[in-house]
Amino acid sequence: MEMMSGFPPAEAAQISLSNWQEPLSVRWAFRHMREIIPSQCIQAGPGPVAPLPIAAGPDLGDVSVTRLSGSESNFDEVIGDTWTDALIVMHRGRLVTERYYAGCTDATPHLLMSVSKSIVGCVAGILAAQGLLEPDAPVSKYVPEVGGSGYGDATVRHLLDMRTGVLFRETYNLPDAEVRVMERSMGWRPRLEGDPVGAYAYLATLEKAGPHGGQFTYRSADTDMLGWVCERASDARMADLVSTLLWQPLGAEADAEITCDSVGTGIHDGGISSIPRDLARFGQLLLDDGRIGKRQVVPVTHLEEAWKRPDDVREAFAASENEEVLPGGWYRNQFWFVPTKRGPALVCLGIHGQMIYVNQETGLVGVKMSSWPTPQDAASLVDTLRAFGALGEHLEAAGDRRSLTRSRRRRTLKT
Amino acid sequence: MEMMSGFPPAEAAQISLSNWQEPLSVRWAFRHMREIIPSQCIQAGPGPVAPLPIAAGPDLGDVSVTRLSGSESNFDEVIGDTWTDALIVMHRGRLVTERYYAGCTDATPHLLMSVSKSIVGCVAGILAAQGLLEPDAPVSKYVPEVGGSGYGDATVRHLLDMRTGVLFRETYNLPDAEVRVMERSMGWRPRLEGDPVGAYAYLATLEKAGPHGGQFTYRSADTDMLGWVCERASDARMADLVSTLLWQPLGAEADAEITCDSVGTGIHDGGISSIPRDLARFGQLLLDDGRIGKRQVVPVTHLEEAWKRPDDVREAFAASENEEVLPGGWYRNQFWFVPTKRGPALVCLGIHGQMIYVNQETGLVGVKMSSWPTPQDAASLVDTLRAFGALGEHLEAAGDRRSLTRSRRRRTLKT
Repeated sequence: MEMMSGFPPAEAAQISLSNWQEPLSVRWAFRHMREIIPSQCIQAGPGPVAPLPIAAGPDLGDVSVTRLSGSESNFDEVIGDTWTDALIVMHRGRLVTERYYAGCTDATPHLLMSVSKSIVGCVAGILAAQGLLEPDAPVSKYVPEVGGSGYGDATVRHLLDMRTGVLFRETYNLPDAEVRVMERSMGWRPRLEGDPVGAYAYLATLEKAGPHGGQFTYRSADTDMLGWVCERASDARMADLVSTLLWQPLGAEADAEITCDSVGTGIHDGGISSIPRDLARFGQLLLDDGRIGKRQVVPVTHLEEAWKRPDDVREAFAASENEEVLPGGWYRNQFWFVPTKRGPALVCLGIHGQMIYVNQETGLVGVKMSSWPTPQDAASLVDTLRAFGALGEHLEAAGDRRSLTRSRRRRTLKT
Repeated sequence: MEMMSGFPPAEAAQISLSNWQEPLSVRWAFRHMREIIPSQCIQAGPGPVAPLPIAAGPDLGDVSVTRLSGSESNFDEVIGDTWTDALIVMHRGRLVTERYYAGCTDATPHLLMSVSKSIVGCVAGILAAQGLLEPDAPVSKYVPEVGGSGYGDATVRHLLDMRTGVLFRETYNLPDAEVRVMERSMGWRPRLEGDPVGAYAYLATLEKAGPHGGQFTYRSADTDMLGWVCERASDARMADLVSTLLWQPLGAEADAEITCDSVGTGIHDGGISSIPRDLARFGQLLLDDGRIGKRQVVPVTHLEEAWKRPDDVREAFAASENEEVLPGGWYRNQFWFVPTKRGPALVCLGIHGQMIYVNQETGLVGVKMSSWPTPQDAASLVDTLRAFGALGEHLEAAGDRRSLTRSRRRRTLKT
């Protein structure tokens, strides 16, 4: 039985607010978020669409990938085994491959989950460059309401790097974890009696578990708090900030959207849906140090200070539970970084398999939207990272061979 | 205090599912429906946008209008006094005026309320012409689930003309009227314990108050039932039917949308939002007997059988409470008809002041989106009808004068 088919769908085929994050629902749900939860439009705007020039490239499917399990595999097998909905690869600014699966198309907005965080992080970086936001200022400068909460003495920098000491458990499968109460408050699950009304009302209830500035602990609430700071600092709502500061300058080809709570607050930590091609444009922007042509869209400092891996940021990550799955990594300005054979990769990650992969050494931008049945899947995550890593190495080597061939030809012509 | 301003808005400025239809909320709410209620996209599609050629016309504001109250007024005063959000007038296929108020723009989707019904009626008419739907067939042929309900022995024709005998009170301000329970079931108001889940589950609970085929009684439920029949007959959901059968052939310039209930059913009776310019295109289509150029988009029979006013349809209306406000009118195929000084006008109407006005004798198409603070307002309704009527007469007379001037000039040139 196909989920959500029929008028109305049979009860067992219905996807609603109560079950959209369940394993059988996610494939349909992630493509139809506005049909489940109220949403705000992130306008692509009237400007011209930025072209995605196409690279004439070879079949990539047989590029070898060693999986987390240790087995030998290849690029296509990894993509095929990890519930992929959409895949885009850009190399040195050119589209190498663009594929859609299981009915997804180039016009299908797909839920980004926490890839949204990296977008919100860029908004914060832009506002900082505009002088509207001071990363070292206390959060309560912008949002006095949280002065008495766990965020009372945190700084914006602590939010950007997820190093507050706020008590917030991101345990998706634990019914009474803080993330569950937050999801109910922000309209991602049915509200229960007594739950705060709205994401911001919820944030003001959070308490402190320890000092700020310590280890990295992945907390979606920190990004929602960051989004609140951005809205107060700019007097604009997140949907409009993303549109004017990023999607319009990017030359996005489709409106994106963000789910909103019952009082009109966008869900900064994971509520954006976008077509994959516009994510490829965003990934390319990150690869190109925040520039599109001559226009600096995201300030170079926002990216540089993340790429350069400050020692304390690395130590904060090493002390976290994430070190086990992504050894040597770090988290800065709402981006993940993972070491690869060819330098570090900047990675935007969302549960259930959402990823933008950016490697400046290999010139590779990878976008993968997925419907993993579970929120976390270390093997699928690591295998996908390795697949993009291997592809970057392969394309660079192929490029080297082509350059070599070209220089040989040139020499041949000369003689 | 501006409604929905601030991050988050102050409690008194919040608009949510609980209060969006209240007087202070409607202006903001009708422009932001997707932010309050889940919705489905009605795609404008990739085709070219149909141009709206501009007429070089005089200022229309001083065209005289006699109001329902008996006072003498003019076109601009009527528009200014009736909470107008958007106004478009086409005459003989050309745009005479296009105005937006109180922050509404040409890109703002506005809730159509029951203007949606006329769109769904056209979908039914098109499906009938395609042989997918028989107007004289029983409703239960398409939806066996309602066989035991009040709709059990009704025909599709009864739905089209709102002449079922189903017990359904459309009394917006009566808390226990059927329309209120339906709104809770379909996600337009917070659901109460025991309410059916979804619009269709609700329809199956309705009972019969009297025989079908009697007097006209305005019942939104009949249109929802009609939409259910359309979806079953075509195996497509209403959002996609409106897109492929109407919005794409129309050359719509923006995606429209339709609110949906918790199991993904579009709200056929009033859930569509559209930009006003696309409604002008739809109105022009109705003026032009369903044709766009040489393409017959809406079957001519669907419109002709409505314009021609069958005697029993007129009698059904004369027996209804609507005769008092719209004397001499009739309701057929989900369109209202009202007599004017220059022939009958076809009118699509929605509560709180939504209207498309089409007069084939004067060649006038009027679109007015409003935010009346109350659902019903006889004076605003009648004054708007008279304003469009007077404008049609005025433009025709001006056209006659111009033609006369042209023929005189021609004669002058000849001599």
